[in-house]
Amino acid sequence: MATLDPGIGEKFSRRTKRAINHDGTFNVRRRGGPHRHDPYQWLITMEWWPFIGMVVTFFTVLNVAFAFAYISLGLDDLPGVAAPHGWWQDFLSALFFSIQTFTSVGYGHVYPGSNGTGFLSSVEALVGVLTFALATGLLYGRFSRPTARIQFSHTAIISRRADGLPCLQFRIANQRNNILIDLQARVILKKTDPATNNQTYALLPLERDTISFFPLTWTLVHDITAKSPLHGLGPADYERLDLEIIIQLKGYDDTFAQDVHARNSYIHDEIEWHRRFIRAYEVAEDGIVEVNLDQLHLTEALA
Amino acid sequence: MATLDPGIGEKFSRRTKRAINHDGTFNVRRRGGPHRHDPYQWLITMEWWPFIGMVVTFFTVLNVAFAFAYISLGLDDLPGVAAPHGWWQDFLSALFFSIQTFTSVGYGHVYPGSNGTGFLSSVEALVGVLTFALATGLLYGRFSRPTARIQFSHTAIISRRADGLPCLQFRIANQRNNILIDLQARVILKKTDPATNNQTYALLPLERDTISFFPLTWTLVHDITAKSPLHGLGPADYERLDLEIIIQLKGYDDTFAQDVHARNSYIHDEIEWHRRFIRAYEVAEDGIVEVNLDQLHLTEALA
Amino acid sequence: MATLDPGIGEKFSRRTKRAINHDGTFNVRRRGGPHRHDPYQWLITMEWWPFIGMVVTFFTVLNVAFAFAYISLGLDDLPGVAAPHGWWQDFLSALFFSIQTFTSVGYGHVYPGSNGTGFLSSVEALVGVLTFALATGLLYGRFSRPTARIQFSHTAIISRRADGLPCLQFRIANQRNNILIDLQARVILKKTDPATNNQTYALLPLERDTISFFPLTWTLVHDITAKSPLHGLGPADYERLDLEIIIQLKGYDDTFAQDVHARNSYIHDEIEWHRRFIRAYEVAEDGIVEVNLDQLHLTEALA
Amino acid sequence: MATLDPGIGEKFSRRTKRAINHDGTFNVRRRGGPHRHDPYQWLITMEWWPFIGMVVTFFTVLNVAFAFAYISLGLDDLPGVAAPHGWWQDFLSALFFSIQTFTSVGYGHVYPGSNGTGFLSSVEALVGVLTFALATGLLYGRFSRPTARIQFSHTAIISRRADGLPCLQFRIANQRNNILIDLQARVILKKTDPATNNQTYALLPLERDTISFFPLTWTLVHDITAKSPLHGLGPADYERLDLEIIIQLKGYDDTFAQDVHARNSYIHDEIEWHRRFIRAYEVAEDGIVEVNLDQLHLTEALA
Repeated sequence: MATLDPGIGEKFSRRTKRAINHDGTFNVRRRGGPHRHDPYQWLITMEWWPFIGMVVTFFTVLNVAFAFAYISLGLDDLPGVAAPHGWWQDFLSALFFSIQTFTSVGYGHVYPGSNGTGFLSSVEALVGVLTFALATGLLYGRFSRPTARIQFSHTAIISRRADGLPCLQFRIANQRNNILIDLQARVILKKTDPATNNQTYALLPLERDTISFFPLTWTLVHDITAKSPLHGLGPADYERLDLEIIIQLKGYDDTFAQDVHARNSYIHDEIEWHRRFIRAYEVAEDGIVEVNLDQLHLTEALA
Repeated sequence: MATLDPGIGEKFSRRTKRAINHDGTFNVRRRGGPHRHDPYQWLITMEWWPFIGMVVTFFTVLNVAFAFAYISLGLDDLPGVAAPHGWWQDFLSALFFSIQTFTSVGYGHVYPGSNGTGFLSSVEALVGVLTFALATGLLYGRFSRPTARIQFSHTAIISRRADGLPCLQFRIANQRNNILIDLQARVILKKTDPATNNQTYALLPLERDTISFFPLTWTLVHDITAKSPLHGLGPADYERLDLEIIIQLKGYDDTFAQDVHARNSYIHDEIEWHRRFIRAYEVAEDGIVEVNLDQLHLTEALA
Repeated sequence: MATLDPGIGEKFSRRTKRAINHDGTFNVRRRGGPHRHDPYQWLITMEWWPFIGMVVTFFTVLNVAFAFAYISLGLDDLPGVAAPHGWWQDFLSALFFSIQTFTSVGYGHVYPGSNGTGFLSSVEALVGVLTFALATGLLYGRFSRPTARIQFSHTAIISRRADGLPCLQFRIANQRNNILIDLQARVILKKTDPATNNQTYALLPLERDTISFFPLTWTLVHDITAKSPLHGLGPADYERLDLEIIIQLKGYDDTFAQDVHARNSYIHDEIEWHRRFIRAYEVAEDGIVEVNLDQLHLTEALA
Repeated sequence: MATLDPGIGEKFSRRTKRAINHDGTFNVRRRGGPHRHDPYQWLITMEWWPFIGMVVTFFTVLNVAFAFAYISLGLDDLPGVAAPHGWWQDFLSALFFSIQTFTSVGYGHVYPGSNGTGFLSSVEALVGVLTFALATGLLYGRFSRPTARIQFSHTAIISRRADGLPCLQFRIANQRNNILIDLQARVILKKTDPATNNQTYALLPLERDTISFFPLTWTLVHDITAKSPLHGLGPADYERLDLEIIIQLKGYDDTFAQDVHARNSYIHDEIEWHRRFIRAYEVAEDGIVEVNLDQLHLTEALA
């Protein structure tokens, strides 16, 4: 029987970090080769503040460069600029003219009065409108990228059913108001052989692996039957075998009309034993169900 | 056997409102936690008039703010503004200059005549073009979001087949001219235990749960055989058990080239007994089939 | 057994036109009800020339309206306009100023010299930039809409296999250079009862209903075995029963990274009997396969 | 049994080139018929430098044309243009005015002073903003098109398992940092009959044809059991039968939230015999797995 490898690798020269971080990234670096940096991917996945900083920096650097180019042609070629008052004032005058050209404001109290500045300002105007065309695409790309903001409980728990059967549980909620449909979950166990550092994988079947709608919280349950790869393991084993519970989620986002994915994992010190989750929603007086996202992580000891 | 829960919850402290409203939203509120308000999602799903109002308000507020900033620098720094005629005229002059900068019209009869106004107008020009870049993305996002406008009959009916078998029926039509392909339906029954308020769910199998094309109306039929969870229930039971017929639709939209989804539900007072639907389409003289959307809801008493 | 209805309807008061036209549309009209005209859908699916005409008309009408508004405020409020030379010249001057504002060119030789024209030109500048934001989205929406341009052979044919088995065949090719992947076909037969005008449907199984790639032509073949709903029918039956061969195609477009769909149908007078298709591709001297789209329709009599 | 044809054709008049090139294109030409050139497809799939060249050329040609149109109306109609200094200076003045209009900069030191130039500049301003609307869409379309940059090992190898079973292997890695999910592979063997040039196809089953995640390299393995169509064939047979190993990959791109596809093939002289792949990743001291894309192609002789 071919062993299950979800693509994370089986044979390693030493012990690896966890496979999947809480933000869904992998602990993998890429070196050498024709490794393509995709600027679009980078620009639409970076955080907002760095992105805005980059836009402002790009805008400033480009206009400063054009300002120096106008100065090098001589400010006499930009009629309307006041008589020179030293290089700082000249630079500012050229910079303001450059920005008025780049943004296509073009008041015209300063204007290109020679072929040199006429040509340069034509190039700058083209660069400017294309830059904003690009910025339009980037802003739209950033906003419209469907991303699932699924909150996972901080810990997974080992709980116990009414009939005494132990089970692994964790809980998720949607941080956003968008509606996720046909949400599917797959849970894979990663086990590391302490002697060889080899990693093996096994599917952990779930009591229910799909829900039609996801307006509330969802508790995912794997029963630790005799067949489960977790059967008979205690907390010390979880640490010794470097167990990692890898979760893959997939659903349809009704706002973006596209599939969204999410990933997470729990390792040994993120698992609580003999606990159960406290319900995280109540029915308000008006009959509406209130989900309290603060309570997503709340557990209590089993009796 | 694991019970069916479509993700709407099973145990509640009191009776809940209907699970799904007629517009497809859920009767769920979210509180606490790292709940993310996604401004893009909000801006592309809101109605058109509030959206236009927001755009105009945002444009006005921002330009008023810039106008005050220009005034605070002194209108002497904006050559071309007529000699002051009181604060209202000054404000209007500054506001018009601001708007001409923000929209990059830049007539130039008024222009930035100092470093202060030069800098401020540069910032405003950048803010302006980026704002319209954003507006472009939002407008496109609003328009291009694939949404199914599926009209459901106002009521579901309990009808009777020729052989006497009772059946649950409701009818749908596409309000738009776009063509929906491979439309699939799933119908789930929600039942509430009057004693415990616990909710249980059961699938209601359909006579036909998929159609290839959806140019006409589609009547969905669940036969109430002895196996049906509706078997033996009368109108009083529907109310007592707080029955809710939950419908999930999924299809491919040939205009937007994307899957679209729709949801709806019927509760006890939206169900008519011993009725049948009157056909809602006729063949015109030119051989073209005419669907009359007004007749979608028409039913008549069974003989 | 539930009969197959692909969603086109079974019971009709009179004989209908063909279900599906050659352009993939249905012969259905919609009347009454909350029928939603979706302007976006209309604007991105209309032909290019009407679309460009609409854009130019919209631009012209809006600017003419603004021109009259400026005139009603008095051209004295637009300094820079030459002394009046009659209403036509006044109209043109106001129109040119309007367009310069709407497109945010704003030369400034004419400029708003009063609060009235200042306010009006501010509104027009905002309307202008938002209009072009909208136009940007529409142009992108038109271009980026994935559409399959699949060419169907003008006729389907009834051919005969080497072992004498008759078969229904038609042939398709991709008119574009984009690569279609995992192309799937489904063929449904529509039969009309001449007495009642009731329509029944049956699936026509294909020898091969999926291909991985679609760089060449694809001949779709339904064997008319004893089980086939076409078994034993001759040309007169095809006409009498108003047979319609309905084809649904679905594939993945590698350029647009989205699924695309196509539809078509053949009716009795588009079917040739006892013919076979002539191969429509040859290997050129450089080893490259040349598809000749002109030959897609070529058939020859069976021996 | 219907033979497998992935859509690449079975009967040919002479020997064809390889079916699929290393860039995923097919060796097929299209002639005649209503063959649609789709300009959008062409503009978003062409390389960046030709694209930028086209934009600059288009911008230049259009503005030169408008410049000549202004000249033909007479530069007297463009007040602000300096007294004529010969045709070259006149041309430049008209060109700069044209560009200022096209990009909507509109300084206004030159402005349309007649109805003729007023009309022409109005048309140009509209053409200009629509052109940049189009450019916005094209730039976004180019950037946002999801493409898989999957690096294939330069050669496939015939290796040998520990138990002596020979196997066909090749290896892939993701050149980008985006995360591919649920990557599926399908491998088809193309065999050409040296006598008839007829091509037949057979599926080559893989040891594992799907991986959940693709952060590392993936070695795809087809065991050459007695059932394999490769069983008993040596290097000379590979050449004689013109074998081509055709690979189709499909996965979900987590950045673009869309499915991506890739194709490639190996022919006889791209297959190494009795080799094995050297592992291309190591665990760094910080526990992070380092993939070295340079080593993707490294093989060593079997012992």
